[in-house]
Amino acid sequence: MNSDQICNQSNGNEQQQQQQQQQQQMYNSPTDLINSVDSIRLKLTDDWKLLSSIYDLLVDEKAFCTASHEWNEKIVQFEQPKELKKLIDLKIDENKSLTMPEIEKICRQIIKYSISELCGYVHGDGIFSPGGSISNMYGLVLARYRRHPNIKTGGMFGLPPLVLFTSQESHYSLKKAAHWLGFGMNNCIEVATNERGQMSIEDLESKILDIKAEGRVPFFVNATAGTTVLGAFDDFEKVANICEKYNLWLHVDACLGGSALFCYKYRQLLKGLHRSNSFSWNPHKSMGAPLQCSLFITRELELLPQCNSLAVDYLFQQDKFYDISYDTGNKSIQCGRKVDAFKLWLMLKARGYGSFGHLLDYALDISKIFVNKLKQRKDHGFRLVLDEFQYTNVCFWYIPKHLRNLEETEEWNNQLYEVAPKVKELMIREGTLMLGYCPLQYRNVGNFFRMVFTCFPIINDSELDFILDEIERLAEQCHKHTSNGFV
Amino acid sequence: MNSDQICNQSNGNEQQQQQQQQQQQMYNSPTDLINSVDSIRLKLTDDWKLLSSIYDLLVDEKAFCTASHEWNEKIVQFEQPKELKKLIDLKIDENKSLTMPEIEKICRQIIKYSISELCGYVHGDGIFSPGGSISNMYGLVLARYRRHPNIKTGGMFGLPPLVLFTSQESHYSLKKAAHWLGFGMNNCIEVATNERGQMSIEDLESKILDIKAEGRVPFFVNATAGTTVLGAFDDFEKVANICEKYNLWLHVDACLGGSALFCYKYRQLLKGLHRSNSFSWNPHKSMGAPLQCSLFITRELELLPQCNSLAVDYLFQQDKFYDISYDTGNKSIQCGRKVDAFKLWLMLKARGYGSFGHLLDYALDISKIFVNKLKQRKDHGFRLVLDEFQYTNVCFWYIPKHLRNLEETEEWNNQLYEVAPKVKELMIREGTLMLGYCPLQYRNVGNFFRMVFTCFPIINDSELDFILDEIERLAEQCHKHTSNGFV
Repeated sequence: MNSDQICNQSNGNEQQQQQQQQQQQMYNSPTDLINSVDSIRLKLTDDWKLLSSIYDLLVDEKAFCTASHEWNEKIVQFEQPKELKKLIDLKIDENKSLTMPEIEKICRQIIKYSISELCGYVHGDGIFSPGGSISNMYGLVLARYRRHPNIKTGGMFGLPPLVLFTSQESHYSLKKAAHWLGFGMNNCIEVATNERGQMSIEDLESKILDIKAEGRVPFFVNATAGTTVLGAFDDFEKVANICEKYNLWLHVDACLGGSALFCYKYRQLLKGLHRSNSFSWNPHKSMGAPLQCSLFITRELELLPQCNSLAVDYLFQQDKFYDISYDTGNKSIQCGRKVDAFKLWLMLKARGYGSFGHLLDYALDISKIFVNKLKQRKDHGFRLVLDEFQYTNVCFWYIPKHLRNLEETEEWNNQLYEVAPKVKELMIREGTLMLGYCPLQYRNVGNFFRMVFTCFPIINDSELDFILDEIERLAEQCHKHTSNGFV
Repeated sequence: MNSDQICNQSNGNEQQQQQQQQQQQMYNSPTDLINSVDSIRLKLTDDWKLLSSIYDLLVDEKAFCTASHEWNEKIVQFEQPKELKKLIDLKIDENKSLTMPEIEKICRQIIKYSISELCGYVHGDGIFSPGGSISNMYGLVLARYRRHPNIKTGGMFGLPPLVLFTSQESHYSLKKAAHWLGFGMNNCIEVATNERGQMSIEDLESKILDIKAEGRVPFFVNATAGTTVLGAFDDFEKVANICEKYNLWLHVDACLGGSALFCYKYRQLLKGLHRSNSFSWNPHKSMGAPLQCSLFITRELELLPQCNSLAVDYLFQQDKFYDISYDTGNKSIQCGRKVDAFKLWLMLKARGYGSFGHLLDYALDISKIFVNKLKQRKDHGFRLVLDEFQYTNVCFWYIPKHLRNLEETEEWNNQLYEVAPKVKELMIREGTLMLGYCPLQYRNVGNFFRMVFTCFPIINDSELDFILDEIERLAEQCHKHTSNGFV
């Protein structure tokens, strides 16, 4: 498997047909996906038992050592990368999942051979970083380096302002990155969005032209795959056209939505991703990898080490006796790093990457069922922020009984926007649910609930009703308390 | 306990007297420190058993939940920060260590109440970051913000070059940071060092004057507490005098040496640290906290949130029902972050922070014993890079028999510099030892061994002999193989 292959499967008619066939083969009936996801769900309690073996694994593999008489044992059992590839079955399969003894065996192997790098299986050039904010910074620094390699040595002082573009619905890390990396937040231009939350192509082009007319220099566009609040996916094909036209680096913040690469039904959300120069992807979001697990991936071969390398002899000796291309330190801005790659690899290895496709397809299906339930409960006070959502984010209000069928004045709206924070407070105090809320200030819209479905937990239909019933119960309880002077 | 108090204990006569008294009380005889450290060492195998309870802890505290019928249980048991402080004994003691049942109890409490912030116990303003490289970036961005707050919005484009100074022995992350943050590596000026590896104060001042004469703007000096190769500590008092004279931000990269804050015998290494504006400290180095555990700490109150904040409504709601000063997101450049604070807090809590003082005092003592052993083995081919080291790094060559008592020509040196890489290769293949090597190129010195002592493992005297014997054995074996044509 290879990110190129996956991205490209959503392009070209022939490929689309193939994909549809594959999808049909995969889901012959509506129950196929459900069965596939249930088999994962029912085995979760068994999977978690792996944690009970961690201590035994470490003891058996002699990871603990307090005294010199134990030094007869090897500290590390070195094998050349080529040999390790034979000893440990690194290949990730689509549908082959592993049994618990097999997963244990891999953990034992990793403990035994650890210290060697195991990054070679992410195709294309890339690096794991400690989070999406920093992955996005990698994109900005790489784009800047391609445009002006001399900034690496000389800095940005003499230059006309370099400008990046990102939609007003995109993640705040782009603005923070513009601040940290010395561009300045005013050189991070907010592009308007359409009703669904997607970047307006017209506004993007018009703002690029405005900036050029001012003598500032556009160099970078960030598109988003799964915006934070509404879960919107920008139209990557159209954004890529603009970037080609004006010679701009296209980065995709796919921290939230990148996991759709594994989907069977919804992979087309990422159509055009292959035309970007780089993208960020956080398996710790939709896929449920433990924090932190974030990747920066670029198609520009050689650029990453060229951009970030520095001769550091005490760490990255050139006179090693194995293939030093496994030393990825020169690509990174960090020195000591966690082996975040292992988590992702073990997840994909243990379940088969296709399992995550099923789980995410299911999360998208269930989010659409949730939207339908909200529509059905319209008369019971539920109101959607958008009629439909592209990804697994569902945003909605609950209108308590005492606010229904009244004129929706500014005062009425302000009362509505107080509902979510109050319900959230009760949720936390009672401990029954955890559900976020937020406003969309640039749309002049106040607090609403935001439910984001992910691979784990695997939510079922009846649980959706529980969630809605609970919101209703808490909201009415809230009002009762308020009117009785309890709060 | 408070970092101010610790730093300041090394200042002022009265405090010095107190400290000496305390030290004397602590170590009445040479065996006192040994006994204290041995009691930790002998209990390690018991401590590690905590790992075997992790699964049970998570099951008992109902962290796992697959089905809706388990939803009667609370997802989180919310308590106000004030109440949590009563429920969980947050205070870290100097000498009180916890029993295993007490440590288990704390882990259970954290699982039970987790999601609440637990950062409030690091005094002064600061933030955990994913590593020393990024902690050092925090220092640079904060210093830049104090000097030119407008850079946050406008960028650095119109300005005369801002210049930072750091010693040629300092960590490479400063240069990488200069590249990333837009200063450019040529605006990161390398200051010469003395024989021990400490920054030359004369060269620092002279280079500051040179840069000013060129029209560039000095704004930041990085001093180092524990350089990577030689373990040198800059003279913070003298560097601080220069910084005050020229109004420069003083940052201390104490990633390696910051743990000396806990020392009883060697705390004076950090004399003057209190005069810095900020410092970085990685408990994942000398103290043995699991990767990643890095802190950025600054004395400039209010500056960190002012510098890095951004209104982010969907995350940092202002209408929460608890004290929002516990939300540290506005100080950070990151969004999702690991709870690295917990590891450090639990370590200090479980053992008492004084234990780490003993362990590090012991590591420094044993490194000096190692230096003496190397001197005693001078005739057996061992040669020190420096006569003495300030911290726990010990750098040395091994001269194989066939190279001894020959004229030390350039060719002879080149042969000597090949010894460490060859021995390291054999070490890894045989798995008996792991010991780094590196050159010091700006001193025109080739590869030598670099042994760095840390709190864990706790090395004893006989193990030092094993290490030296093993290096000797492998080096001679290496030469034998080479002359027999085996390699």
